[in-house]
Amino acid sequence: MTEPRINPNVSVDCVIFSFEDDGLEVLLIERNAGQNRIEDDLLALPGNLIYEDETLDAAANRVLRELTGLKNIYLEQVYTFGDPARINKQKDQDWLHSIRAHPEARVITVAYTSLVKKSNFKISPSSFARQAMWVKVKEVPQLAFDHNALLEKALEYLKHKIYIEPLGYELLPERFTLAQLQKLYEAILDDHFDKRNFRRKVLRTSFIIPLNEKQKGVAHKPAGLYRFDKSKFHKI
Amino acid sequence: MTEPRINPNVSVDCVIFSFEDDGLEVLLIERNAGQNRIEDDLLALPGNLIYEDETLDAAANRVLRELTGLKNIYLEQVYTFGDPARINKQKDQDWLHSIRAHPEARVITVAYTSLVKKSNFKISPSSFARQAMWVKVKEVPQLAFDHNALLEKALEYLKHKIYIEPLGYELLPERFTLAQLQKLYEAILDDHFDKRNFRRKVLRTSFIIPLNEKQKGVAHKPAGLYRFDKSKFHKI
Repeated sequence: MTEPRINPNVSVDCVIFSFEDDGLEVLLIERNAGQNRIEDDLLALPGNLIYEDETLDAAANRVLRELTGLKNIYLEQVYTFGDPARINKQKDQDWLHSIRAHPEARVITVAYTSLVKKSNFKISPSSFARQAMWVKVKEVPQLAFDHNALLEKALEYLKHKIYIEPLGYELLPERFTLAQLQKLYEAILDDHFDKRNFRRKVLRTSFIIPLNEKQKGVAHKPAGLYRFDKSKFHKI
Repeated sequence: MTEPRINPNVSVDCVIFSFEDDGLEVLLIERNAGQNRIEDDLLALPGNLIYEDETLDAAANRVLRELTGLKNIYLEQVYTFGDPARINKQKDQDWLHSIRAHPEARVITVAYTSLVKKSNFKISPSSFARQAMWVKVKEVPQLAFDHNALLEKALEYLKHKIYIEPLGYELLPERFTLAQLQKLYEAILDDHFDKRNFRRKVLRTSFIIPLNEKQKGVAHKPAGLYRFDKSKFHKI
Protein backbone atom coordinates (compact mmCIF):
# COMPACT_ATOMS: atom_id res chain seq x y z
CA MET A 1 0.00 0.00 0.00
CA THR A 2 1.38 3.40 -0.97
CA GLU A 3 1.17 6.37 1.34
CA PRO A 4 -1.53 8.86 0.33
CA ARG A 5 -0.10 11.92 -1.39
CA ILE A 6 -0.33 15.09 0.70
CA ASN A 7 -1.56 18.40 -0.73
CA PRO A 8 0.97 20.91 0.65
CA ASN A 9 -1.30 23.92 0.02
CA VAL A 10 -4.58 23.06 1.71
CA SER A 11 -5.36 22.10 5.29
CA VAL A 12 -8.43 21.61 7.46
CA ASP A 13 -8.87 22.69 11.09
CA CYS A 14 -11.58 21.55 13.47
CA VAL A 15 -13.20 23.82 16.05
CA ILE A 16 -15.03 21.37 18.30
CA PHE A 17 -17.12 22.99 21.01
CA SER A 18 -18.52 21.27 24.04
CA PHE A 19 -21.58 22.67 25.75
CA GLU A 20 -21.16 22.64 29.51
CA ASP A 21 -23.45 24.23 32.06
CA ASP A 22 -20.95 26.97 32.83
CA GLY A 23 -20.14 27.89 29.24
CA LEU A 24 -18.59 26.54 26.06
CA GLU A 25 -15.30 24.66 25.88
CA VAL A 26 -13.14 24.01 22.82
CA LEU A 27 -10.91 21.06 21.97
CA LEU A 28 -7.23 21.98 21.62
CA ILE A 29 -4.01 20.05 21.12
CA GLU A 30 -0.42 20.37 22.23
CA ARG A 31 1.85 19.74 19.27
CA ASN A 32 4.62 17.25 19.33
CA ALA A 33 7.80 19.10 18.49
CA GLY A 34 9.07 16.61 15.93
CA GLN A 35 12.55 15.18 15.67
CA ASN A 36 14.36 18.45 16.36
CA ARG A 37 12.67 18.71 19.76
CA ILE A 38 12.06 22.40 19.37
CA GLU A 39 10.21 24.06 22.18
CA ASP A 40 6.58 24.36 21.24
CA ASP A 41 4.23 25.83 23.78
CA LEU A 42 1.50 27.07 21.48
CA LEU A 43 -1.78 25.22 21.74
CA ALA A 44 -3.53 24.63 18.42
CA LEU A 45 -6.81 23.52 16.95
CA PRO A 46 -6.64 19.97 15.64
CA GLY A 47 -5.76 20.38 11.96
CA ASN A 48 -3.51 19.12 9.20
CA LEU A 49 -2.89 19.08 5.44
CA ILE A 50 -5.38 17.20 3.28
CA TYR A 51 -4.60 14.24 1.04
CA GLU A 52 -4.80 14.78 -2.71
CA ASP A 53 -7.48 12.14 -3.16
CA GLU A 54 -9.90 13.02 -0.35
CA THR A 55 -12.74 15.53 -0.10
CA LEU A 56 -12.48 18.40 2.38
CA ASP A 57 -15.21 16.87 4.56
CA ALA A 58 -13.41 13.52 4.64
CA ALA A 59 -10.13 15.26 5.48
CA ALA A 60 -11.72 17.10 8.41
CA ASN A 61 -13.09 13.87 9.82
CA ARG A 62 -9.82 12.01 9.33
CA VAL A 63 -7.63 14.72 10.84
CA LEU A 64 -9.86 15.11 13.87
CA ARG A 65 -9.84 11.37 14.45
CA GLU A 66 -6.08 11.05 13.95
CA LEU A 67 -5.21 13.83 16.35
CA THR A 68 -7.84 13.52 19.06
CA GLY A 69 -9.58 10.16 18.67
CA LEU A 70 -12.98 11.85 18.15
CA LYS A 71 -15.06 10.25 15.43
CA ASN A 72 -18.61 10.11 14.06
CA ILE A 73 -19.03 13.82 14.61
CA TYR A 74 -21.16 15.88 12.26
CA LEU A 75 -18.73 18.56 11.10
CA GLU A 76 -19.88 21.66 9.29
CA GLN A 77 -17.72 23.89 7.16
CA VAL A 78 -17.47 27.41 8.57
CA TYR A 79 -15.00 29.51 6.62
CA THR A 80 -11.76 29.36 4.67
CA PHE A 81 -8.72 31.33 5.80
CA GLY A 82 -6.16 32.18 3.17
CA ASP A 83 -4.12 35.18 4.21
CA PRO A 84 -0.63 34.75 2.71
CA ALA A 85 0.74 35.89 6.09
CA ARG A 86 -1.25 33.47 8.23
CA ILE A 87 1.86 31.53 9.22
CA ASN A 88 3.80 34.47 10.60
CA LYS A 89 4.83 33.45 14.10
CA GLN A 90 8.41 32.25 14.50
CA LYS A 91 7.28 29.38 16.69
CA ASP A 92 4.89 28.16 13.99
CA GLN A 93 7.58 28.38 11.33
CA ASP A 94 10.02 26.47 13.55
CA TRP A 95 7.44 23.86 14.22
CA LEU A 96 6.61 23.43 10.54
CA HIS A 97 10.30 23.08 9.74
CA SER A 98 10.59 20.35 12.34
CA ILE A 99 7.72 18.33 10.99
CA ARG A 100 6.81 19.08 7.37
CA ALA A 101 8.19 18.44 3.91
CA HIS A 102 7.31 21.90 2.54
CA PRO A 103 7.41 24.20 5.54
CA GLU A 104 7.42 27.35 3.39
CA ALA A 105 4.33 26.48 1.33
CA ARG A 106 1.42 28.87 1.50
CA VAL A 107 -1.37 26.98 3.24
CA ILE A 108 -5.04 27.81 2.88
CA THR A 109 -7.14 26.26 5.62
CA VAL A 110 -10.78 25.29 5.72
CA ALA A 111 -12.33 25.54 9.19
CA TYR A 112 -14.94 23.03 10.33
CA THR A 113 -17.00 23.10 13.50
CA SER A 114 -19.29 21.00 15.65
CA LEU A 115 -21.01 21.35 18.99
CA VAL A 116 -20.98 18.22 21.14
CA LYS A 117 -21.37 17.05 24.71
CA LYS A 118 -17.85 16.15 25.80
CA SER A 119 -19.02 13.37 28.12
CA ASN A 120 -20.11 11.46 24.99
CA PHE A 121 -16.55 11.26 23.68
CA LYS A 122 -13.22 9.90 24.82
CA ILE A 123 -10.13 11.84 23.87
CA SER A 124 -7.09 9.90 22.72
CA PRO A 125 -4.38 12.06 21.20
CA SER A 126 -1.99 10.65 18.63
CA SER A 127 -0.11 11.59 15.42
CA PHE A 128 1.63 14.90 16.18
CA ALA A 129 -0.73 15.72 19.06
CA ARG A 130 1.06 14.81 22.28
CA GLN A 131 -1.97 15.98 24.22
CA ALA A 132 -5.58 16.95 23.56
CA MET A 133 -7.79 18.78 26.04
CA TRP A 134 -10.97 20.76 26.52
CA VAL A 135 -10.32 24.41 27.37
CA LYS A 136 -12.94 26.94 28.42
CA VAL A 137 -13.50 29.29 25.48
CA LYS A 138 -13.08 32.28 27.80
CA GLU A 139 -9.67 31.02 28.90
CA VAL A 140 -8.17 30.20 25.51
CA PRO A 141 -4.66 31.69 25.26
CA GLN A 142 -2.84 32.82 22.13
CA LEU A 143 -2.98 29.87 19.73
CA ALA A 144 -0.80 28.67 16.87
CA PHE A 145 -1.15 30.20 13.38
CA ASP A 146 -4.39 32.22 13.01
CA HIS A 147 -6.33 29.76 15.12
CA ASN A 148 -7.74 32.44 17.42
CA ALA A 149 -9.43 33.95 14.36
CA LEU A 150 -10.78 30.53 13.37
CA LEU A 151 -12.20 30.10 16.86
CA GLU A 152 -13.88 33.53 16.70
CA LYS A 153 -15.43 32.75 13.33
CA ALA A 154 -16.77 29.41 14.55
CA LEU A 155 -18.30 31.09 17.61
CA GLU A 156 -19.99 33.65 15.38
CA TYR A 157 -21.28 30.83 13.16
CA LEU A 158 -22.78 29.11 16.20
CA LYS A 159 -24.49 32.29 17.37
CA HIS A 160 -26.12 32.77 13.99
CA LYS A 161 -27.05 29.14 13.80
CA ILE A 162 -29.00 29.09 17.04
CA TYR A 163 -31.53 31.44 15.42
CA ILE A 164 -31.97 29.16 12.46
CA GLU A 165 -31.79 25.64 13.87
CA PRO A 166 -32.89 24.05 17.13
CA LEU A 167 -29.28 23.47 18.10
CA GLY A 168 -30.11 22.26 21.55
CA TYR A 169 -31.98 19.30 20.21
CA GLU A 170 -28.95 17.01 20.36
CA LEU A 171 -27.39 18.54 23.45
CA LEU A 172 -30.24 18.59 25.94
CA PRO A 173 -32.07 15.55 27.20
CA GLU A 174 -35.23 14.75 25.26
CA ARG A 175 -37.27 16.26 28.08
CA PHE A 176 -35.59 19.28 29.62
CA THR A 177 -36.28 22.09 32.06
CA LEU A 178 -36.32 25.77 31.13
CA ALA A 179 -33.26 26.24 33.36
CA GLN A 180 -31.34 23.76 31.20
CA LEU A 181 -32.49 25.47 28.03
CA GLN A 182 -31.53 28.87 29.39
CA LYS A 183 -28.02 27.63 30.16
CA LEU A 184 -27.61 26.42 26.58
CA TYR A 185 -28.63 29.78 25.11
CA GLU A 186 -26.48 31.65 27.63
CA ALA A 187 -23.46 29.48 26.82
CA ILE A 188 -23.76 29.92 23.06
CA LEU A 189 -24.73 33.59 23.04
CA ASP A 190 -22.32 34.40 25.87
CA ASP A 191 -24.98 36.38 27.61
CA HIS A 192 -27.06 36.29 30.77
CA PHE A 193 -30.84 36.38 30.62
CA ASP A 194 -33.40 37.27 33.21
CA LYS A 195 -35.18 34.05 34.16
CA ARG A 196 -38.68 35.43 33.87
CA ASN A 197 -38.06 37.19 30.56
CA PHE A 198 -36.48 34.07 29.13
CA ARG A 199 -39.42 31.98 30.27
CA ARG A 200 -41.90 34.39 28.72
CA LYS A 201 -40.09 34.42 25.38
CA VAL A 202 -39.76 30.66 25.28
CA LEU A 203 -43.45 30.16 25.95
CA ARG A 204 -44.28 32.53 23.11
CA THR A 205 -42.48 30.32 20.58
CA SER A 206 -44.41 27.45 19.05
CA PHE A 207 -41.52 24.97 18.96
CA ILE A 208 -40.80 24.51 22.66
CA ILE A 209 -43.64 22.42 23.98
CA PRO A 210 -44.54 22.21 27.68
CA LEU A 211 -45.15 18.62 28.80
CA ASN A 212 -47.56 17.68 31.48
CA GLU A 213 -44.68 16.35 33.58
CA LYS A 214 -42.27 17.47 36.25
CA GLN A 215 -38.74 16.49 37.21
CA LYS A 216 -38.45 13.49 39.50
CA GLY A 217 -36.02 12.69 42.28
CA VAL A 218 -34.64 16.22 42.77
CA ALA A 219 -34.02 17.81 46.14
CA HIS A 220 -35.52 21.17 45.17
CA LYS A 221 -39.03 21.94 43.98
CA PRO A 222 -39.38 19.93 40.74
CA ALA A 223 -39.44 22.02 37.55
CA GLY A 224 -41.74 21.44 34.58
CA LEU A 225 -40.38 19.55 31.58
CA TYR A 226 -40.40 20.63 27.94
CA ARG A 227 -39.56 19.19 24.54
CA PHE A 228 -38.54 20.59 21.12
CA ASP A 229 -40.85 20.34 18.15
CA LYS A 230 -38.32 20.40 15.34
CA SER A 231 -40.92 20.52 12.57
CA LYS A 232 -42.43 23.71 13.98
CA PHE A 233 -39.03 25.36 14.27
CA HIS A 234 -38.37 24.82 10.58
CA LYS A 235 -41.69 26.37 9.58
CA ILE A 236 -40.72 29.68 11.20
CA MET B 1 7.51 44.50 -13.01
CA THR B 2 7.31 40.73 -12.69
CA GLU B 3 4.10 38.82 -13.24
CA PRO B 4 2.41 37.74 -10.00
CA ARG B 5 2.93 34.04 -9.28
CA ILE B 6 -0.21 31.95 -9.69
CA ASN B 7 -1.28 29.37 -7.10
CA PRO B 8 -2.28 26.38 -9.25
CA ASN B 9 -4.27 24.72 -6.44
CA VAL B 10 -6.70 27.38 -5.25
CA SER B 11 -9.30 29.41 -7.13
CA VAL B 12 -12.15 31.77 -6.32
CA ASP B 13 -15.56 31.92 -7.99
CA CYS B 14 -18.10 34.73 -7.71
CA VAL B 15 -21.85 34.17 -7.58
CA ILE B 16 -23.25 37.65 -8.20
CA PHE B 17 -27.00 37.89 -7.93
CA SER B 18 -29.12 40.73 -9.19
CA PHE B 19 -32.51 41.39 -7.63
CA GLU B 20 -35.09 42.10 -10.29
CA ASP B 21 -38.81 42.43 -9.78
CA ASP B 22 -39.51 39.13 -11.49
CA GLY B 23 -36.87 37.09 -9.66
CA LEU B 24 -33.13 36.74 -9.15
CA GLU B 25 -30.56 36.76 -11.94
CA VAL B 26 -26.96 35.58 -11.80
CA LEU B 27 -23.88 36.85 -13.63
CA LEU B 28 -22.31 34.25 -15.94
CA ILE B 29 -19.51 34.28 -18.49
CA GLU B 30 -18.80 32.59 -21.79
CA ARG B 31 -15.23 31.38 -21.79
CA ASN B 32 -12.78 32.21 -24.49
CA ALA B 33 -11.52 28.94 -25.90
CA GLY B 34 -7.83 29.83 -25.82
CA GLN B 35 -5.32 29.40 -28.62
CA ASN B 36 -6.51 25.95 -29.58
CA ARG B 37 -9.95 27.33 -30.40
CA ILE B 38 -11.67 24.39 -28.84
CA GLU B 39 -15.41 24.45 -28.81
CA ASP B 40 -16.59 25.69 -25.44
CA ASP B 41 -20.29 26.14 -24.94
CA LEU B 42 -20.46 25.82 -21.15
CA LEU B 43 -21.34 29.00 -19.31
CA ALA B 44 -19.41 29.51 -16.07
CA LEU B 45 -19.34 31.65 -12.96
CA PRO B 46 -16.62 34.28 -13.13
CA GLY B 47 -13.67 32.65 -11.40
CA ASN B 48 -9.94 32.00 -11.66
CA LEU B 49 -6.83 30.86 -9.79
CA ILE B 50 -5.52 33.13 -7.03
CA TYR B 51 -2.09 34.77 -6.90
CA GLU B 52 0.36 33.52 -4.29
CA ASP B 53 0.63 36.91 -2.63
CA GLU B 54 -3.00 37.95 -2.38
CA THR B 55 -5.72 37.18 0.16
CA LEU B 56 -8.78 35.20 -0.89
CA ASP B 57 -10.98 38.31 -0.58
CA ALA B 58 -8.63 40.32 -2.77
CA ALA B 59 -8.49 37.51 -5.32
CA ALA B 60 -12.29 37.38 -5.52
CA ASN B 61 -12.48 41.11 -6.15
CA ARG B 62 -9.70 41.05 -8.74
CA VAL B 63 -11.05 38.07 -10.66
CA LEU B 64 -14.57 39.49 -10.79
CA ARG B 65 -13.22 42.82 -12.06
CA GLU B 66 -10.92 41.21 -14.62
CA LEU B 67 -13.60 38.99 -16.11
CA THR B 68 -16.73 41.15 -15.92
CA GLY B 69 -15.68 44.71 -15.14
CA LEU B 70 -17.69 44.74 -11.89
CA LYS B 71 -15.91 46.43 -9.01
CA ASN B 72 -16.51 47.90 -5.57
CA ILE B 73 -18.84 45.06 -4.71
CA TYR B 74 -19.07 43.74 -1.18
CA LEU B 75 -18.30 40.06 -1.64
CA GLU B 76 -18.95 37.53 1.09
CA GLN B 77 -17.40 34.12 1.34
CA VAL B 78 -19.97 31.35 1.13
CA TYR B 79 -18.35 27.94 0.99
CA THR B 80 -15.28 26.09 -0.24
CA PHE B 81 -15.60 23.25 -2.75
CA GLY B 82 -12.84 20.70 -2.82
CA ASP B 83 -14.04 17.44 -4.29
CA PRO B 84 -11.08 15.81 -6.05
CA ALA B 85 -13.47 15.02 -8.92
CA ARG B 86 -14.90 18.49 -9.32
CA ILE B 87 -13.25 18.94 -12.74
CA ASN B 88 -14.71 15.85 -14.36
CA LYS B 89 -16.36 17.07 -17.55
CA GLN B 90 -14.39 16.50 -20.75
CA LYS B 91 -15.22 20.01 -21.94
CA ASP B 92 -13.77 21.52 -18.78
CA GLN B 93 -10.61 19.44 -19.08
CA ASP B 94 -10.22 20.44 -22.73
CA TRP B 95 -10.71 24.05 -21.85
CA LEU B 96 -8.17 23.94 -19.03
CA HIS B 97 -5.65 22.30 -21.35
CA SER B 98 -6.15 25.10 -23.85
CA ILE B 99 -5.55 27.88 -21.32
CA ARG B 100 -3.65 26.82 -18.21
CA ALA B 101 -0.14 25.88 -17.27
CA HIS B 102 -1.14 23.02 -14.93
CA PRO B 103 -4.43 21.74 -16.31
CA GLU B 104 -4.28 18.54 -14.25
CA ALA B 105 -3.78 20.23 -10.86
CA ARG B 106 -6.42 19.60 -8.23
CA VAL B 107 -8.15 22.91 -7.68
CA ILE B 108 -10.03 23.84 -4.52
CA THR B 109 -12.35 26.78 -5.05
CA VAL B 110 -13.67 29.34 -2.59
CA ALA B 111 -17.12 30.67 -3.55
CA TYR B 112 -18.05 34.30 -2.92
CA THR B 113 -21.40 35.97 -3.33
CA SER B 114 -23.11 39.33 -3.46
CA LEU B 115 -26.58 40.64 -4.18
CA VAL B 116 -26.69 43.79 -6.28
CA LYS B 117 -29.01 45.79 -8.51
CA LYS B 118 -27.74 45.21 -12.04
CA SER B 119 -28.72 48.66 -13.24
CA ASN B 120 -25.99 50.05 -10.94
CA PHE B 121 -23.22 48.23 -12.83
CA LYS B 122 -21.89 48.10 -16.35
CA ILE B 123 -20.62 44.76 -17.60
CA SER B 124 -17.41 44.74 -19.63
CA PRO B 125 -16.00 41.26 -20.17
CA SER B 126 -12.29 40.76 -20.69
CA SER B 127 -9.46 38.30 -19.88
CA PHE B 128 -10.74 34.85 -20.86
CA ALA B 129 -14.38 35.94 -20.70
CA ARG B 130 -15.51 36.66 -24.24
CA GLN B 131 -18.95 37.52 -22.93
CA ALA B 132 -20.63 38.21 -19.57
CA MET B 133 -24.37 38.28 -19.06
CA TRP B 134 -27.17 38.20 -16.50
CA VAL B 135 -29.20 35.00 -16.62
CA LYS B 136 -32.43 34.31 -14.72
CA VAL B 137 -31.58 31.88 -11.92
CA LYS B 138 -34.50 29.68 -12.95
CA GLU B 139 -33.15 29.42 -16.49
CA VAL B 140 -29.51 28.63 -15.69
CA PRO B 141 -28.37 25.66 -17.84
CA GLN B 142 -25.68 23.11 -16.96
CA LEU B 143 -22.59 25.12 -16.07
CA ALA B 144 -18.86 24.45 -16.20
CA PHE B 145 -17.13 22.47 -13.42
CA ASP B 146 -19.32 22.19 -10.27
CA HIS B 147 -20.68 25.70 -10.73
CA ASN B 148 -24.33 24.63 -10.48
CA ALA B 149 -23.55 23.39 -6.95
CA LEU B 150 -21.85 26.70 -6.12
CA LEU B 151 -24.91 28.56 -7.33
CA GLU B 152 -27.20 26.39 -5.18
CA LYS B 153 -25.06 26.98 -2.11
CA ALA B 154 -25.04 30.73 -2.66
CA LEU B 155 -28.83 30.75 -3.02
CA GLU B 156 -29.16 28.83 0.23
CA TYR B 157 -26.79 31.30 1.91
CA LEU B 158 -28.96 34.20 0.74
CA LYS B 159 -32.13 32.56 2.04
CA HIS B 160 -30.61 32.11 5.48
CA LYS B 161 -29.22 35.59 5.42
CA ILE B 162 -32.51 37.32 4.85
CA TYR B 163 -33.61 36.12 8.30
CA ILE B 164 -30.51 37.56 9.93
CA GLU B 165 -29.82 40.80 8.09
CA PRO B 166 -32.03 43.45 6.51
CA LEU B 167 -30.77 42.48 3.06
CA GLY B 168 -33.15 44.74 1.25
CA TYR B 169 -31.59 47.80 2.78
CA GLU B 170 -29.22 48.34 -0.14
CA LEU B 171 -31.53 47.09 -2.86
CA LEU B 172 -34.74 48.97 -2.25
CA PRO B 173 -35.10 52.73 -2.39
CA GLU B 174 -34.72 54.39 1.01
CA ARG B 175 -38.49 54.71 1.16
CA PHE B 176 -40.29 51.76 -0.34
CA THR B 177 -43.76 50.29 -0.66
CA LEU B 178 -44.83 46.97 0.82
CA ALA B 179 -45.30 45.67 -2.73
CA GLN B 180 -41.62 46.36 -3.43
CA LEU B 181 -40.59 44.67 -0.19
CA GLN B 182 -42.76 41.66 -0.94
CA LYS B 183 -41.15 41.26 -4.37
CA LEU B 184 -37.71 41.24 -2.73
CA TYR B 185 -38.67 38.50 -0.27
CA GLU B 186 -40.41 36.53 -2.99
CA ALA B 187 -37.38 36.74 -5.27
CA ILE B 188 -34.92 35.60 -2.61
CA LEU B 189 -37.08 32.94 -1.00
CA ASP B 190 -38.45 31.80 -4.38
CA ASP B 191 -41.93 31.79 -2.97
CA HIS B 192 -45.22 33.59 -3.37
CA PHE B 193 -46.91 35.25 -0.41
CA ASP B 194 -50.46 36.33 0.14
CA LYS B 195 -50.49 40.13 0.09
CA ARG B 196 -52.53 40.54 3.27
CA ASN B 197 -50.59 37.94 5.22
CA PHE B 198 -47.30 39.51 4.19
CA ARG B 199 -48.54 42.95 5.19
CA ARG B 200 -49.67 41.69 8.58
CA LYS B 201 -46.33 39.98 9.27
CA VAL B 202 -44.34 43.02 8.22
CA LEU B 203 -46.32 45.33 10.43
CA ARG B 204 -45.70 43.02 13.38
CA THR B 205 -41.91 43.47 13.06
CA SER B 206 -40.33 46.44 14.74
CA PHE B 207 -37.73 47.17 12.04
CA ILE B 208 -39.97 48.10 9.12
CA ILE B 209 -41.28 51.53 9.93
CA PRO B 210 -44.38 53.04 8.30
CA LEU B 211 -43.80 56.63 7.20
CA ASN B 212 -46.50 59.21 7.10
CA GLU B 213 -46.11 59.48 3.35
CA LYS B 214 -47.50 58.05 0.17
CA GLN B 215 -46.15 57.44 -3.33
CA LYS B 216 -46.34 60.41 -5.67
CA GLY B 217 -46.93 60.60 -9.41
CA VAL B 218 -48.30 57.11 -9.87
CA ALA B 219 -51.30 56.28 -12.03
CA HIS B 220 -52.83 53.89 -9.51
CA LYS B 221 -53.92 54.58 -5.94
CA PRO B 222 -50.70 55.68 -4.18
CA ALA B 223 -49.32 53.18 -1.66
CA GLY B 224 -47.89 54.02 1.76
CA LEU B 225 -44.12 54.27 2.11
CA TYR B 226 -41.90 52.47 4.64
CA ARG B 227 -38.28 52.49 5.76
CA PHE B 228 -35.92 50.00 7.43
CA ASP B 229 -34.66 50.57 10.95
CA LYS B 230 -31.38 48.65 10.79
CA SER B 231 -30.56 49.11 14.47
CA LYS B 232 -33.84 47.47 15.54
CA PHE B 233 -33.28 44.54 13.20
CA HIS B 234 -29.96 43.75 14.84
CA LYS B 235 -31.49 43.75 18.31
CA ILE B 236 -33.85 40.94 17.38
